[in-house]
Amino acid sequence: MTSRSSATTARTSSEARAVARTQTLLKGKDGIGTVRRTVLPGGLRIVTETLPSVRSATFGIWANVGSRDETPTLNGATHYLEHLLFKGTAKRTALDISSAIDAVGGEMNAFTAKEYTCYYARVLDTDLPLAIDVVCDMLTGSLIAPEDVDAERGVILEEIAMTEDDPGDCVHDLFAHTMLGDTPLGRPVLGTVDTINALNRGQIARFYKKHYDPTHLVVAAAGNVDHATVVRQVRRAFERAGALSRHDAVPMAPREGSRTLRTAGKVELLNRKTEQAHVVLGMPGLARTDERRWALGVLNTALGGGMSSRLFQEVREKRGLAYSVYSYTSGFADCGLFGVYAGCRPSQVHDVLKICRDELDRVATHGLDDDEVARAIGQLSGSTVLGLEDTGALMNRIGKSELCWGEQMSVDDMLARIAEVTPDDVREVAGELLTQRPSLSVIGPLKDKQADRLDEAVS
Amino acid sequence: MTSRSSATTARTSSEARAVARTQTLLKGKDGIGTVRRTVLPGGLRIVTETLPSVRSATFGIWANVGSRDETPTLNGATHYLEHLLFKGTAKRTALDISSAIDAVGGEMNAFTAKEYTCYYARVLDTDLPLAIDVVCDMLTGSLIAPEDVDAERGVILEEIAMTEDDPGDCVHDLFAHTMLGDTPLGRPVLGTVDTINALNRGQIARFYKKHYDPTHLVVAAAGNVDHATVVRQVRRAFERAGALSRHDAVPMAPREGSRTLRTAGKVELLNRKTEQAHVVLGMPGLARTDERRWALGVLNTALGGGMSSRLFQEVREKRGLAYSVYSYTSGFADCGLFGVYAGCRPSQVHDVLKICRDELDRVATHGLDDDEVARAIGQLSGSTVLGLEDTGALMNRIGKSELCWGEQMSVDDMLARIAEVTPDDVREVAGELLTQRPSLSVIGPLKDKQADRLDEAVS
Repeated sequence: MTSRSSATTARTSSEARAVARTQTLLKGKDGIGTVRRTVLPGGLRIVTETLPSVRSATFGIWANVGSRDETPTLNGATHYLEHLLFKGTAKRTALDISSAIDAVGGEMNAFTAKEYTCYYARVLDTDLPLAIDVVCDMLTGSLIAPEDVDAERGVILEEIAMTEDDPGDCVHDLFAHTMLGDTPLGRPVLGTVDTINALNRGQIARFYKKHYDPTHLVVAAAGNVDHATVVRQVRRAFERAGALSRHDAVPMAPREGSRTLRTAGKVELLNRKTEQAHVVLGMPGLARTDERRWALGVLNTALGGGMSSRLFQEVREKRGLAYSVYSYTSGFADCGLFGVYAGCRPSQVHDVLKICRDELDRVATHGLDDDEVARAIGQLSGSTVLGLEDTGALMNRIGKSELCWGEQMSVDDMLARIAEVTPDDVREVAGELLTQRPSLSVIGPLKDKQADRLDEAVS
Repeated sequence: MTSRSSATTARTSSEARAVARTQTLLKGKDGIGTVRRTVLPGGLRIVTETLPSVRSATFGIWANVGSRDETPTLNGATHYLEHLLFKGTAKRTALDISSAIDAVGGEMNAFTAKEYTCYYARVLDTDLPLAIDVVCDMLTGSLIAPEDVDAERGVILEEIAMTEDDPGDCVHDLFAHTMLGDTPLGRPVLGTVDTINALNRGQIARFYKKHYDPTHLVVAAAGNVDHATVVRQVRRAFERAGALSRHDAVPMAPREGSRTLRTAGKVELLNRKTEQAHVVLGMPGLARTDERRWALGVLNTALGGGMSSRLFQEVREKRGLAYSVYSYTSGFADCGLFGVYAGCRPSQVHDVLKICRDELDRVATHGLDDDEVARAIGQLSGSTVLGLEDTGALMNRIGKSELCWGEQMSVDDMLARIAEVTPDDVREVAGELLTQRPSLSVIGPLKDKQADRLDEAVS
């Protein structure tokens, strides 16, 4: 750790007074946190949610970069880079990084998605300064040493192999490919064996330099945290790394755009010797900012979001045809997907697909019953409030909101938006989305005859 | 829902005054809960942990039955029964059960292990009476209807197939078989396709009657709960079901016994066309009540419990040979296992096994460095305290303690036991356990030559 002179601290505070802008975005009450945002000179955004009733804190940094920012050659670079940020900085070896957080019993991890990357540590509140120091150092001071690039290539190839061994996970990558093809959004976050073998240190280091500028980052902390203290510590860490020198830099705006997906009736089958056939039947959904997303959330919950949902009841409870069956939405900046997953023995795949397709058609035509809508609203509201006790979930919510929407929504507002959804709204969004001709992705050991019949599900 | 006459309530309270025994086991402070226990007439134990700072509650019922209580013919019956308890009671259909909890956004689930089964619901504190009503009804009033037995058979066969498609999970079942053979503890919790196909309604109904007597159950609730209210509601629910009529019944004692496992140098290989080879290298460990378990916990953490652990550093960080590598302990009433898992490409399996074996041998001979012990103690302590914010984890802790140990340990006592572990204690337990000749379980596409070399790892 670097020693801190009081002169440095004094300089920091005087700059903060000059240009840092702090706002209280949401006022807390009854166990709901207060959300504040500061924009530092250099364009770094810091959001915190203060919940004094807990003893822990989660600290995260979000980077506005994901696999959709990759060219075909660079596919997998975002995730490769995420791994390399754990491998050492000018101040810390990989072991220094992991032992610092392990020694206090914290959890540290990261995840890479198609539109963002997040690094985080969950620790006891008294260990928050340590977490801030370590995570900021990783983000600003990564060495990306050539020998680490090579060792980590092996780890990522193992991660790809492990994912291949999990067909229930892998089929979602296949579905993205089915719907979006060989495009930035359609390609896998992990990359492929070929791209990972071809990526070199220079490409990854350039990618790091380009996408980890402070204007691309959002810092988020939630739990028993004090906003001003977090801001001071983060600022000091970034300044020490020389990362806030462009005082007039402004934060990057959220991604935007709008795009109409036209994929329909497409079938992709990966023939594998698995026990189950793993299927995703789906169609274009909604972009992340679409106003109809609240109605789609209710629709998704009632259709395949829990044990009382239609798909669970029809496929599992009544007929015992699957163990796992659910629907889901993925929303990107400019488009989205809606899908139904099921895993079942290959001999039953046509029955399962028919039931799922029939249910989609039924909801497309008739919408949902009033009591299904009421129950889904209750389910979404209750799980939203239950989610507030986990500082990790809070950190995710405020960090992702800042990065992807550029705004914070209070829990009360979210609950209000959910509660306002009417059976008519659901009917409308179902009529728009579920009437689209679906496409289908399958991983499983299907014989030719069975494979030929897959078209029935998307006709 | 049944209406409640005031007469019923009055009778309940007067009986409670007569014989229910309530004790405060642990006093709470600073965000740590107060733990209380009541034993009802009928032999039903109820433990609660009250944490007024949260808004949620988790309610669970633990049954002292697991797959080790099954004969070979009944293998899978405990888990089959767990599924059937969700299928309906005299008062509720399967849909009534799931929609009740879904409608309030709660999470309801269950898990079956080798020595216990647990059913639980996590809800907002205001919905706790509902959760108690539903879960108690499931446990005391299950119909086990013949048509449900048949439909659920399909679901369980799918669950078995799904597990088979996850070799990183499945290899732990194989390891239990390698170490314990075709014995109650060695057989899989899910059963096999053959036993599940053969089990009939009568067998499962008898199993239910035998193992779900109130004396075999522990009720546990944690979060913003009031002990006396929980006791009153649970008592009412069990009395309505006529389940507390044997007033002199006493709770079942925890399982006990002691057993020496002698398996050594055994190798089991399941040849599968997977991308990775999934291996578990391990040996006999410690029973759940063994006093050396605290030292073993420290040893396990330092050896394979986090990113800074020896195995992670040697196998992944330095050499990039695996994505996932860790060690673990399983403790049963009378014996235990210690294992190291790794997933890697088949061509690297011998390198990975050699590194793991060498590390086990090194620790067996030299123990751990003082700073490794200190870090592992910090890691275990920090994660213990971080775990206190999750009412689900709290419910698990008090429920399992009551059922398996028959006592509650305060967090302060746990932290003290962890902190007391010395490098000498670790050296001693490592010298006792890790000097045993290991055995090995592998799932993967190994060619004959590679398969022949597996013996090297256990020689």
